[in-house]
Amino acid sequence: MSEPRSGVLYGVGLGPGDPDLLTLRAAGLLRSLEVVAVPRSERGTDISGAVVATFVDEARVVTLTTPMPVDATAVGRGWRGRVAPLIAALDAGRTVGMVTDGDPSLFSTFAHAASAVRELRPQTEVVIIPGVPSFCAAAAVEARPLLVGADRLALLPASRVDNDVMLAAMANADTVVLLKAGAAIDRIRSVLDGPARGWSVRYARRIGLPGEEHRDSLDGAGDDYMSLVILRRPREATR
Amino acid sequence: MSEPRSGVLYGVGLGPGDPDLLTLRAAGLLRSLEVVAVPRSERGTDISGAVVATFVDEARVVTLTTPMPVDATAVGRGWRGRVAPLIAALDAGRTVGMVTDGDPSLFSTFAHAASAVRELRPQTEVVIIPGVPSFCAAAAVEARPLLVGADRLALLPASRVDNDVMLAAMANADTVVLLKAGAAIDRIRSVLDGPARGWSVRYARRIGLPGEEHRDSLDGAGDDYMSLVILRRPREATR
Repeated sequence: MSEPRSGVLYGVGLGPGDPDLLTLRAAGLLRSLEVVAVPRSERGTDISGAVVATFVDEARVVTLTTPMPVDATAVGRGWRGRVAPLIAALDAGRTVGMVTDGDPSLFSTFAHAASAVRELRPQTEVVIIPGVPSFCAAAAVEARPLLVGADRLALLPASRVDNDVMLAAMANADTVVLLKAGAAIDRIRSVLDGPARGWSVRYARRIGLPGEEHRDSLDGAGDDYMSLVILRRPREATR
Repeated sequence: MSEPRSGVLYGVGLGPGDPDLLTLRAAGLLRSLEVVAVPRSERGTDISGAVVATFVDEARVVTLTTPMPVDATAVGRGWRGRVAPLIAALDAGRTVGMVTDGDPSLFSTFAHAASAVRELRPQTEVVIIPGVPSFCAAAAVEARPLLVGADRLALLPASRVDNDVMLAAMANADTVVLLKAGAAIDRIRSVLDGPARGWSVRYARRIGLPGEEHRDSLDGAGDDYMSLVILRRPREATR
C-alpha cells in the first residue's frame, strides 16, 4: 500500500494476538507510522503490546492506559481526556495510528478513541484496517466451521447481557459466539445444563497470548476477560 | 512461520479480496505451498483467482470448478468427486493448500472440500489460517463500528433464510449482517419498509473486486451474489 498520510487517524486491527496473523497492510503501517498508540487496559489484558513490539520500535509507541469502564458516558469522557497525544501528533502533521486487538469494528477500544478524536478535532479522517476476529481464530484452531449452508450466527458480549438475551439469541441461531465470557461462565454453564442441553461447546482463552487454551468443555474455565465460548446447536440427522 | 508440512491440508483465508488484506501467514503459505487449490464458482464469482495470482505462480495452481449447489447432500457428493487432485498431491507428499474468500470458518467452500478429503483420506490433518471476513472489511470502509458496549450481532445468509427468520434475528440483535444478499434484496427492502423502519442500512458489493460499491441505501442494489447488507437498530437517545 502507499505510504500513510498525515492528518489521518489509522485504526489498525491486530488480529487475535499472533503477529503472523496481522494483515500485510497492518504490518506495513506499523512499520511506517510515526506514532502508534497502544491502549493498555488497567486489567492487564494486553494483547497489543507484544504484537506491536514485533513491528514498532519503542520510540514511536504512545501507551494510552484505560480503566475500561462499562458505562458508555464514562467511556466517552475517559477517551476525550486520553487522546491529547494523538491530537497533538495529528496537529503536528505526523502520521498516526492506533492499534486494537482483533477487528476494529467489533467491540474495539478504537471506536471510542476515534469518536473522541473526531469530537475534539472534527477534520480528522479515520481509516480502518480490518483484522481477523478472535472467534475466527478460535474456530480455525478447532478446524471446525462456524457456519455452513443456511446457518445463522449470533455474537454476544456474554458478560454484558443477561440470560434472557442469551436464550433469545440462541433460539434464533445455529452457532452462538459469546465474547467477554469470563464473568459469565457460570451463567453459560447453567444455560448448557438447562435450555441448551445438547449444544456443543468450545472454549478458548487468551488466544495468541501466554496461557492460551482451547477446550471442548467449560471444565476448569474461570473468570478470564480474554475468553470466548462457541456454542453450536446439535445437527438434525437429516440436515 | 515454519515451512508448510506435507500430509497437511491447509485452508487459507484470503480475506475480502484485496491482496494487502491477507495475513502474513496466508501470504507466506501461498508463496511456499507446492499445490494451491482455487475454487472457481460456475457463477463466476471469483475473488480468489486475482488474489492468488499475486502470490502463486500458475504452475502451482489447481482450479476446482464447482456449480455451488444449494442442497447439502449434493454439495458433499460434488466435493467428493472434485478433490482427487488434492488427495493425489497429499499422497505424493507434496505441500497442499486450498484458498477461500474471507474467513474459512464462515460459509466457506473449504469446509466442504476438507470434509470430502477427510472422508476419502482420513489421516489428513487440516490446518486453517483465518482471514478477515467480508463484513469486517465493509464496516472498515464505512469507518463505523459494527458493535460497541453491550451490542448483539446476528449474521445470516439472507438468500437462504425466509423473512420470519430474518425478523426473529433482528428482534434479538442491534446489528444484523446479511450475507449472500443479492437474491434477497427485495425482501430486505420490504422488511425495511415495514418492521425495520428506522434501521440504518449499509450496502456493499464485490468488496475488493472490480465493480466494488459501498452505499448508504439499497437504491440500485441488484441481484449480486457477492453483496452484503448491514442493518443497524436506531439508537435510543439515552443509550
